[in-house]
Amino acid sequence: MKKYDVPDIVISRLPLYVQTLNQLLREGKSVVSSSELGERLKTTPSQIRRDLSYFGGFGKKGSGYDVISLMESLRSILNLNQIWQVALVGVGHVGMALLHYDGFGRKGFEIIAAFDQSPNVIGRKIGGIEVQDVELIEAEICQKHVDIGAITVPAENAQAVADRLVNCGIRAILNYAPVYLEVPKHVQVSNIDPVLKLQKMTYYLK
Amino acid sequence: MKKYDVPDIVISRLPLYVQTLNQLLREGKSVVSSSELGERLKTTPSQIRRDLSYFGGFGKKGSGYDVISLMESLRSILNLNQIWQVALVGVGHVGMALLHYDGFGRKGFEIIAAFDQSPNVIGRKIGGIEVQDVELIEAEICQKHVDIGAITVPAENAQAVADRLVNCGIRAILNYAPVYLEVPKHVQVSNIDPVLKLQKMTYYLK
Repeated sequence: MKKYDVPDIVISRLPLYVQTLNQLLREGKSVVSSSELGERLKTTPSQIRRDLSYFGGFGKKGSGYDVISLMESLRSILNLNQIWQVALVGVGHVGMALLHYDGFGRKGFEIIAAFDQSPNVIGRKIGGIEVQDVELIEAEICQKHVDIGAITVPAENAQAVADRLVNCGIRAILNYAPVYLEVPKHVQVSNIDPVLKLQKMTYYLK
Repeated sequence: MKKYDVPDIVISRLPLYVQTLNQLLREGKSVVSSSELGERLKTTPSQIRRDLSYFGGFGKKGSGYDVISLMESLRSILNLNQIWQVALVGVGHVGMALLHYDGFGRKGFEIIAAFDQSPNVIGRKIGGIEVQDVELIEAEICQKHVDIGAITVPAENAQAVADRLVNCGIRAILNYAPVYLEVPKHVQVSNIDPVLKLQKMTYYLK
């Protein structure tokens, strides 16, 4: 099975499986059935079996999945057995929150550089990282083989920042700006927009 | 068609359609085809037609959708023609970012109260809202028919906060804590976890 033959929606569920398996492990469980996993994840056992079947057979019929080995397999499929470097552009309130968030580091993502255009933050050290002038993106990032960019600038600047990051070899963008970014096909974009989440929930509120 | 007969995944795409139609409107377009919408949204025209078909017929065969009328219909389906009140619990960096974010207000979501347990922030005014002691959640929220809660507290406190909000009548939770919240069936939860988004993208990076 080739990488791009697995539906994207399946891939987007795998990190949730890893998170849940991790939780089960902390609770001392070593084996889990697809129905128990389904219950935890508010989905059906058959969807879980279908999702996992893209990657070969895990677990034996009737005896459930081995928690550690399934978690390790999924982590390996998701390429989580390494530290990924992240460059962050935009040190407003959201950027500051990300720089202070220790969950990134614990989960294998290290912010190695942060940029802003405001003299108010350039030179300040936030969450251990010294904020640099946004003019230095190319000088700092292009040589370093950084794969991931986090964009936390205002909407109107986001596309220009994305273009510069992509030109420097960034292949995955975590985008907090409420705009659709145009990027080449080989670049992944994940949008984080709380308004879209709220607008979905209000459907159910009447 | 009853509310819960529409697949949740379809509902979660509607806000994106609204966002894109809004963008088209700003570009001066009054009619859009399902292929053009599909291109903008990086999906197929047939998925868009299938999604919209849950809500009856929009647009005539061959002539495309009227941008304004489709947008208004979807906004109405999502209950976006009103202001929704939001109570926020946890004024750390993420909470501060949300209190400062003017996109909420512009899109119909008004944070009307913010709570924290730290004397460092209680009493401070942030983004126009005075932060209150978390002990006052019930006194402030239960009477006010607030429907939506935003949880931006550390993971270990999130479930307890969710329980209190639900007891006060909150029916939708925007959860920034990296934990699965247990809530009654009638309560919606949307999780915002940048790590899960990153962990999905790394699948494609090797």
